[in-house]
Amino acid sequence: MPEESTDQPSDAITGHMSPEEFRRQGHAAIDWIADYWASLDDLPVRAQVAPGDVRHLLPASAPEDGEPFDAVLADLDRVVVPGLTHWQHPRFFAYFPANSSPAAILGDLLSSGIGAQGMIWATSPAVTEVEQVVLDWLAEALGLPEAFRSDGPGGGVIQDTASTATFTALLSALHRASGGEARRHGVGGAGWRVYGSTQAHSSLVKAAIMAGLGEDAVRTVAVDPATQAMDVDTLHDAVVEDVGAGLRPLLVHVAAGSTSTGAMDDIAAVAEAVRPWGVWVHVDAAWAGVAAVCPEHREHLAGVEAADSFVTNPHKWLLTTFDCSTFWVRDRAALTGALSILPEYLRNAATESGEVVDYRDWHPQLGRRFRAVKLWAVLRTYGLNGLRAHIRSGVDLADHVAGLVAADERFELVTEPALSLVVFRLRAGDEATMAAMEAVNASGEAYLSHTTVEGRAAIRLAVGSWRTTRADVERTWRALQEAAAAQA
Amino acid sequence: MPEESTDQPSDAITGHMSPEEFRRQGHAAIDWIADYWASLDDLPVRAQVAPGDVRHLLPASAPEDGEPFDAVLADLDRVVVPGLTHWQHPRFFAYFPANSSPAAILGDLLSSGIGAQGMIWATSPAVTEVEQVVLDWLAEALGLPEAFRSDGPGGGVIQDTASTATFTALLSALHRASGGEARRHGVGGAGWRVYGSTQAHSSLVKAAIMAGLGEDAVRTVAVDPATQAMDVDTLHDAVVEDVGAGLRPLLVHVAAGSTSTGAMDDIAAVAEAVRPWGVWVHVDAAWAGVAAVCPEHREHLAGVEAADSFVTNPHKWLLTTFDCSTFWVRDRAALTGALSILPEYLRNAATESGEVVDYRDWHPQLGRRFRAVKLWAVLRTYGLNGLRAHIRSGVDLADHVAGLVAADERFELVTEPALSLVVFRLRAGDEATMAAMEAVNASGEAYLSHTTVEGRAAIRLAVGSWRTTRADVERTWRALQEAAAAQA
Ligand SMILES: Cc1ncc(COP(=O)(O)O)c(C=O)c1O
Ligand SMILES: Cc1ncc(COP(=O)(O)O)c(C=O)c1O
Repeated sequence: MPEESTDQPSDAITGHMSPEEFRRQGHAAIDWIADYWASLDDLPVRAQVAPGDVRHLLPASAPEDGEPFDAVLADLDRVVVPGLTHWQHPRFFAYFPANSSPAAILGDLLSSGIGAQGMIWATSPAVTEVEQVVLDWLAEALGLPEAFRSDGPGGGVIQDTASTATFTALLSALHRASGGEARRHGVGGAGWRVYGSTQAHSSLVKAAIMAGLGEDAVRTVAVDPATQAMDVDTLHDAVVEDVGAGLRPLLVHVAAGSTSTGAMDDIAAVAEAVRPWGVWVHVDAAWAGVAAVCPEHREHLAGVEAADSFVTNPHKWLLTTFDCSTFWVRDRAALTGALSILPEYLRNAATESGEVVDYRDWHPQLGRRFRAVKLWAVLRTYGLNGLRAHIRSGVDLADHVAGLVAADERFELVTEPALSLVVFRLRAGDEATMAAMEAVNASGEAYLSHTTVEGRAAIRLAVGSWRTTRADVERTWRALQEAAAAQA
Repeated sequence: MPEESTDQPSDAITGHMSPEEFRRQGHAAIDWIADYWASLDDLPVRAQVAPGDVRHLLPASAPEDGEPFDAVLADLDRVVVPGLTHWQHPRFFAYFPANSSPAAILGDLLSSGIGAQGMIWATSPAVTEVEQVVLDWLAEALGLPEAFRSDGPGGGVIQDTASTATFTALLSALHRASGGEARRHGVGGAGWRVYGSTQAHSSLVKAAIMAGLGEDAVRTVAVDPATQAMDVDTLHDAVVEDVGAGLRPLLVHVAAGSTSTGAMDDIAAVAEAVRPWGVWVHVDAAWAGVAAVCPEHREHLAGVEAADSFVTNPHKWLLTTFDCSTFWVRDRAALTGALSILPEYLRNAATESGEVVDYRDWHPQLGRRFRAVKLWAVLRTYGLNGLRAHIRSGVDLADHVAGLVAADERFELVTEPALSLVVFRLRAGDEATMAAMEAVNASGEAYLSHTTVEGRAAIRLAVGSWRTTRADVERTWRALQEAAAAQA
């Protein structure tokens, strides 16, 4: 594109944009995004399509000859937008948020343009070093222990998702507990045991399956019915029982903000309960962890000094476009011991000097993109104060919703609101609860998701978009009230 | 950003850009990329920094208050660019390419702006359906079997990397071979065996470790010294021997373009050799697979009809910005059987109807971004003819380099050139070979990587950037000649 040379392939190859064309189309793409965001408020939150509707609008084969980029933009409007559930919509309250933000989008765009592949330090040093610095920044901002910093024995890395982080934690735990035997000879029939509460995220079971331990290796620990937090005495008894039966306790998953209700397991108590057996303590704070940028929202991380690993997702509630899951370990040797492989073609002086970190050994993948740029852009352009204001706004709006729920006798809170998550139901029962939610979702006014708590259906409303205002939550609440009224 | 409402949080939160500011900064980011590309030719390809150099230019903590986005852009120039090895440089010939392209960058930008999370069909139907369509398009364009199409029992999915694809293939194989037992009870001490040639990519061993089988489970099969392709008779004998010893052959990794020399295992012969034992045949065409968009470069995929799974990386040589690894299976039931988990909060009517695909069950991760947009943008704006021209240009340039090597008596080709990869050495020996490569790399003129073939050092020159011209390869060749001369 930028080349002046006469035999530049761009002349010959359809589809190569000239530098001018790239600028023009790039500006148009930016403007498309700004226009899309401006239109969101008027779009139904949930896609109104049936299976196959999007597919059928597309041709059966790729075109033989290139089309102008404008055609792609036009089809985004014609084909894609109607088939989207709009995660960036101000009234998207389902699941947990997956924040996008101007800064993150532009940060990630720059990373695409740079196009560096940071599998090892030597393949593009800045990719590794900016990531180390940014993870140190975030560890400090969240009040995480010194041990997680890159200048000690631990360190942080950007994983694609919390699922991968939890899987990686499990592999590290296996490496440590087996003294490297698992890596060499496999997990065998060693009777490894993994613990998590009934509320632990499904990625724990998925990790156990993928690591070759199987679903049976996961022992589910009961929760306190009121708080939905792990019952630590039950955990302790389970471990004692398993050890007595000749099994090998390996890892405990601590939910610092469960998916269903935002329940907070007691990290310190869990760590204390399993200490005698050297069990790996993995804190899954995928959603709630980032709230710790606010000193007043750090309580759920008390005891994190005792954790072996910790994950939180800036791609959920910290304005950093998917994918960006930040993961720290206390001792990186367990992690790299589990995953490092050094083929000839990646041998290099920097690695051999031991002065650098090769992130390829920190995750399942080999290749990796420069994801740190987007997190760097977010941390810098918002500053910690901007991020605190963002988190506080979500918590405030959720408190407001909780007040509205409590003030309407047809509804009830199921659990105490957790940060920006409110879990509630209709007193009329499961069917009424699900029907009210479905009515709101089908209307496109707002989008909520459901869960079950102690066997009963509940609606989850998770605030998270930086576009969400008080007017948005009130409008959603009115829609729920109308749906409830329509049933009466 | 686009909201007009009075209580819009963007007013209160530092860092939120107004729509106008986003447009302005977005256009600036696009222009930064165009300028970066235009500057590449004059930059040293390999970063000239020492460990810690980048790190030391950055502050120890995140800023308390937000900074303008311009500050990030300025630091990209000041801090990041000098620390980059430029993968998009026209004289980057190391490893395999990791193509970026205007179309892919803009496609991915749009996906960031949309910010949809496609873990299941219901969370944003277009994310799933566009991906299915685009993978069907690519399967057809590469001449892959009908069975891999989404309207049959198989289907395709975008994985982040080929490493993940190979790992996923292994989990699917385990599921099929164990009839679901592995998932429930773990891999145990069942004596599973995985096969690959001595040239198989290291991700195979990593997959075996991660799946709980251990390094010992991988049986390495010798190659033909001349072609570096797997010796299929040796494979057959190994399987027979293992079965005799009570072991359980599980998966064979077929390198359709090895990392070291681009060696092509014979897919049909391998599949035939292991057929009696129902071994899963996984074709790893991470780099070379995309060349099959050209009918004349499809030979190495002969026999792919017999494969159970197939991976190739558009993020290597098909102009699709990292990450984008396309993976197909013949029978998606083995894959989803291995990986599906359905927690309450993801239950929905579409999934229960069986009419949709939930991609969460196709890979280790839960959350997923809308990666199909970038591949869609590439396929449409280049068209298949544009992509063919791109591949052909790489092959032609490599042929030209091979001719130059053959014509200089100080050098020799180590293997026949494979597509766009040329592997050669100095006749003077390993030390001279490595020294010549290192001299060129250190000069910044070009960037090459090394390997060993039959125990001897060799230089790899892989053409792939769409910016690379005949002048670039000739300039690189002159630099190598000068380095060789300087040693004499
Ligand atoms: C507590 C918790 N852990 C893990 C995850 C999985 O996140 P990811 O999609 O990043 O794997 C979630 C997703 O909602 C979650 O809530
Ligand atoms: C043949 C082969 N397979 C797999 C890979 C791994 O690719 P990824 O980084 O996508 O995991 C490579 C990378 O060079 C490769 O050459």
